[in-house]
Amino acid sequence: MSDQGLVIVMSAPSGAGKSSICRRLLAACPEIEFSVSYTSRTPRPNEINGKDYHFISREDFQRRIGQDEFVEWVENYGNFYGTSGKSMNEVLNRGKDLLLDIEPRGAKEIKKKFKDGIFVFVLPPSLDELLHRLEKRGHESAEAIKTRFAQAEGELKEVLWYDYAVFNEDLETAARQLIAIYRAEKCRTNRLQSKINCFFNDVNRDV
Amino acid sequence: MSDQGLVIVMSAPSGAGKSSICRRLLAACPEIEFSVSYTSRTPRPNEINGKDYHFISREDFQRRIGQDEFVEWVENYGNFYGTSGKSMNEVLNRGKDLLLDIEPRGAKEIKKKFKDGIFVFVLPPSLDELLHRLEKRGHESAEAIKTRFAQAEGELKEVLWYDYAVFNEDLETAARQLIAIYRAEKCRTNRLQSKINCFFNDVNRDV
Repeated sequence: MSDQGLVIVMSAPSGAGKSSICRRLLAACPEIEFSVSYTSRTPRPNEINGKDYHFISREDFQRRIGQDEFVEWVENYGNFYGTSGKSMNEVLNRGKDLLLDIEPRGAKEIKKKFKDGIFVFVLPPSLDELLHRLEKRGHESAEAIKTRFAQAEGELKEVLWYDYAVFNEDLETAARQLIAIYRAEKCRTNRLQSKINCFFNDVNRDV
Repeated sequence: MSDQGLVIVMSAPSGAGKSSICRRLLAACPEIEFSVSYTSRTPRPNEINGKDYHFISREDFQRRIGQDEFVEWVENYGNFYGTSGKSMNEVLNRGKDLLLDIEPRGAKEIKKKFKDGIFVFVLPPSLDELLHRLEKRGHESAEAIKTRFAQAEGELKEVLWYDYAVFNEDLETAARQLIAIYRAEKCRTNRLQSKINCFFNDVNRDV
């Protein structure tokens, strides 16, 4: 009997560097699958449908909301974002671990339904550095950056209910911390029940 | 303001390879100090007083028990083993982390007094392998090995109340898991209160 997969939820304000850290985790731990969210927003030039997001129309999104398909969904900057509960359970029931990259509002919904999940918040080294990173991206207007920055400030306080906080002062260190968090959680006694049971069964057989 | 140090308690039945794994953790993380226990037993040829144990007489040990010096102590195979609470607090109040290598009975006492500590149990890959490792040591009689093996079997079930379990199938992997557990615990939000408070104070100042 194999245990059910582990849910890892990552959140961060825009510009904290969460995506880069997540990519490092996935590269280091190929046994983790990435949960691809659904969104009604337009793909950015470098984004691939089915990999970065499942890009669908507003109408399609609203129809799926009606069918209770999403374990969490939000409307943000006028666009819908959501996570398919069916897709999540399909991965977890195969015993695979699942990484979710979602904002705090969505993460809170996931926490209600996946109580055993781990919740990691990525923080920038400082607010100054966060603003600097948002400006460097170059694909948004000054107004959009200002809005994102204001929202980021509000989101930062959400760190307090997360299990873990990773300060992204340096990408390598932050990625190493996230990988450590994942590996450590896999060693939690309550997640190793099957393996421990097997060990004790062997004890009884041998003695 | 710096947070208080973290207590890491390691337990394992004899022969599970705990000492080798602990050495790897200390080598990888020099910021951790090792808690040197007191014992009334005779040093083994390779053991150094003040490094492996503080070797003291039975009389001295009993006097210290009377002075309530030990946060935990046990009598095992006719010898006393104990951890000095005063020494522990001295390290933790300096904000340093502290590794303890003690048996489950002692670990349970530590857990009562240091509720925020982390408790890691090292398991051998199997009982057969454990017996094999005990025999390979070569410095004990067949009778002593038999006694240790019987005690190990009893101790194994203690794994269930520990936070983490590390199966020592391979030393490198087991050591990497322990290091990951330590690094992950350092990222726990509840252990980063000072750093998070500083971050928020900077937010208030900057805005």
